[in-house]
Amino acid sequence: MSDRYLSFANSATGRRVVSALGLPAPLRLERWTAGRNRPVDGAILLSSGPMSKVISGFANKLSDQIFANEEGSFDLPRWTAEHSPKLKALVFDASELTRFEQLGALREFFQPAFKGLGSCPHVVVIGRPPQSIKDPVAASVQRSLEGFTRSLGKEIRRGGTVQLLYVGKGGETQLEGALRFFLSPKSAYVSGQVLHLGACSAEVKDWTRPLTGKTALVTGASRGIGAAIVETLARDGADVVLLDVPAMQDDLEALAARLGGRSIALDICAENAAQMLLEALPEGLDILVHNAGITRDKTLAKMSDGFWNSVINVNVNAPLALTQALLDANKLHEEARLVLISSISGIAGNMGQTNYATSKAGVIGVTQSMAPVLGKQNISINAVAPGFIETQMTAAIPLTLREAGRRMNSMGQGGLPQDVAEAVAWFAQPTSGAVTGQVLRVCGQSLLGA
Amino acid sequence: MSDRYLSFANSATGRRVVSALGLPAPLRLERWTAGRNRPVDGAILLSSGPMSKVISGFANKLSDQIFANEEGSFDLPRWTAEHSPKLKALVFDASELTRFEQLGALREFFQPAFKGLGSCPHVVVIGRPPQSIKDPVAASVQRSLEGFTRSLGKEIRRGGTVQLLYVGKGGETQLEGALRFFLSPKSAYVSGQVLHLGACSAEVKDWTRPLTGKTALVTGASRGIGAAIVETLARDGADVVLLDVPAMQDDLEALAARLGGRSIALDICAENAAQMLLEALPEGLDILVHNAGITRDKTLAKMSDGFWNSVINVNVNAPLALTQALLDANKLHEEARLVLISSISGIAGNMGQTNYATSKAGVIGVTQSMAPVLGKQNISINAVAPGFIETQMTAAIPLTLREAGRRMNSMGQGGLPQDVAEAVAWFAQPTSGAVTGQVLRVCGQSLLGA
Repeated sequence: MSDRYLSFANSATGRRVVSALGLPAPLRLERWTAGRNRPVDGAILLSSGPMSKVISGFANKLSDQIFANEEGSFDLPRWTAEHSPKLKALVFDASELTRFEQLGALREFFQPAFKGLGSCPHVVVIGRPPQSIKDPVAASVQRSLEGFTRSLGKEIRRGGTVQLLYVGKGGETQLEGALRFFLSPKSAYVSGQVLHLGACSAEVKDWTRPLTGKTALVTGASRGIGAAIVETLARDGADVVLLDVPAMQDDLEALAARLGGRSIALDICAENAAQMLLEALPEGLDILVHNAGITRDKTLAKMSDGFWNSVINVNVNAPLALTQALLDANKLHEEARLVLISSISGIAGNMGQTNYATSKAGVIGVTQSMAPVLGKQNISINAVAPGFIETQMTAAIPLTLREAGRRMNSMGQGGLPQDVAEAVAWFAQPTSGAVTGQVLRVCGQSLLGA
Repeated sequence: MSDRYLSFANSATGRRVVSALGLPAPLRLERWTAGRNRPVDGAILLSSGPMSKVISGFANKLSDQIFANEEGSFDLPRWTAEHSPKLKALVFDASELTRFEQLGALREFFQPAFKGLGSCPHVVVIGRPPQSIKDPVAASVQRSLEGFTRSLGKEIRRGGTVQLLYVGKGGETQLEGALRFFLSPKSAYVSGQVLHLGACSAEVKDWTRPLTGKTALVTGASRGIGAAIVETLARDGADVVLLDVPAMQDDLEALAARLGGRSIALDICAENAAQMLLEALPEGLDILVHNAGITRDKTLAKMSDGFWNSVINVNVNAPLALTQALLDANKLHEEARLVLISSISGIAGNMGQTNYATSKAGVIGVTQSMAPVLGKQNISINAVAPGFIETQMTAAIPLTLREAGRRMNSMGQGGLPQDVAEAVAWFAQPTSGAVTGQVLRVCGQSLLGA
């Protein structure tokens, strides 16, 4: 649960020792704290381009210091490394690049900007979805941005993040919701990700409590990542319903009481689970977070039938059955937001986790296969795939493996349950209907992948 | 160019030392040698199922020892760990799995089989493309297979490989070509991959020389991976045309002479490159391999305009322009096969390689965006993404980084140029028209990914 090296490296003495010995110096990441006002606590730099123009229209809601990299662009002051404040957020609009020769604009924008980065800067590159472009050259140019942003994420250091947002038809109007997440400390441990933004007709009235009036159910809610998700959804205004197995009932009720929510003690694998859930939720749901999950690690050679089945059942079979039951009973409201917790293991596979990785890849399958069906009711479904997160589960990993997991990412540290919760809360927002059928890794750009 | 630890670990003394000290013991991988007859030099185990039934119809062309895991299946003898020979190839047909409860069949098939694995065994799991399945449950079950095979690849050891083949409409008839690659030593360094097999009307007449009668152009052909590609295409019967920059002309001509091919000394970035190429190839091409590539590594902060542009130009702009020129001049024959060399950097990004990763992600973009266009002429286009390959280029990497790159994969070693060449040669085969718009990593299932 605690990363002592990170604490040491960020202490006054530790900083000197780490520097003198040439050791890696992971920076303590800035995170969102309750009561913050603007998403970006410092200067934003915008490139030119049509997407940047859209952003310039609402940028004052993100920060009170907005700069352009070109003189006179959007009537914004021009940023220079010498005379302007350090940068906390950078947006490069690559949506109009159609030829490979034009890609040099990336270098021209980021090279000077990187001389004036503040701590924990957030970078977003905006493109057009390659598959939406007929001209193979222009499509390839847009696809190439992914190699750039993933490399930049590995170079930026200082606790910085870099994402690529492909904005499709109608997605322009949803940039505010996306940037409120990707340019703010809410995405502290999200980097090297690629997301597609589409159209969405929903709106957020009050950005300080975007989930006001929404009822959210979170499974596995009594502790760890689940508890963090419930806390964050409640912070954002949702009425929360906490679900966990009967054995966790005391913890569950205590947390529910603290958050003014309800609790349901229920084993999601029980035969009558769907029926019990429907009875407990007569008014239906706006937000459904399938977080409950277990590990039962063994190499396949030694894996029992019981280990295999329990992991498949809890992690993917039960969530799928419950979702289907809620759908069939018409208990998922119009514009509902579904979020499933997958895992980096479900993407890359993992030794000793054939059962877990299969279940978590299955969760990605649920996300991808249900998105078109649910989209007809303006319901979105997405998966969050955590990397190494500091929890009781990861604290139980042997030291060497734990250290490897912690450090093998662009941040040089593990994430916190809050980091996963912020991603879930973002997907849960009304305007995040612009994103569906997608997987967002919360992994500090872990080296591990497929 | 040489992995001394691998040599040591596979020597008589080294084996004892490595074992006594508990050090990793990477196995020297079995590779294809000229003059081999059958793709699989040992026993094949088939599960039941409709795809296995198709395979049982031609399996005697793959090996003379075919077993089933169930009594009486396809009239094949039943394999048991106690009384049957060690397994060199395993095929599990998961195409009919539609419910999560059925996934236990994976465990039931592989658990006993793993007690009788020979060295360097090749495993293929066959599924149906999730996106082709309407029922979200069945689609999710098929998608979950990816978590299983990627985990199994990390568990199998013994120099083994594991792939997932999704067989789409009409793809059943193309299983032979795919299995001749994925079950044979030709795919020695390919593992943890997922490919889609579709319909293809082309045929291979003589499997010992599947490229007979085909003209193949390879760029960057004078040495390293390019030279290996040319050698392999020539071995498989192709008439080879070798292209490289004028500075490499001597090496190029020597290799061309040895292989009975032609050579073209040409800078693909020259202004008149397309015109010169068209003049040099009046009869057109059946196989086009864009292998020429350069690196000019620097962090973005220090990257010059020249470094950026030269890498983008050589690696993606020029190949795209030449391909377009050949297409426009109608010089790519019906059923032509295009293969582009991408890189793991283009997938995962890499520190100090914003230019290279951008260009190699662009190559993936070219593959994906041109596939639908070229498909109308039954032309396929695919990318091969090498991981750590033992070449002069990787020999120049500093020791610590080199060792990390070499060992951070399921094989515990780097690949050889031949491994990349075999993948290219497979894509170049007539029946490989069943695969298009896809990326195959040749990386020993490197940990690195996105």
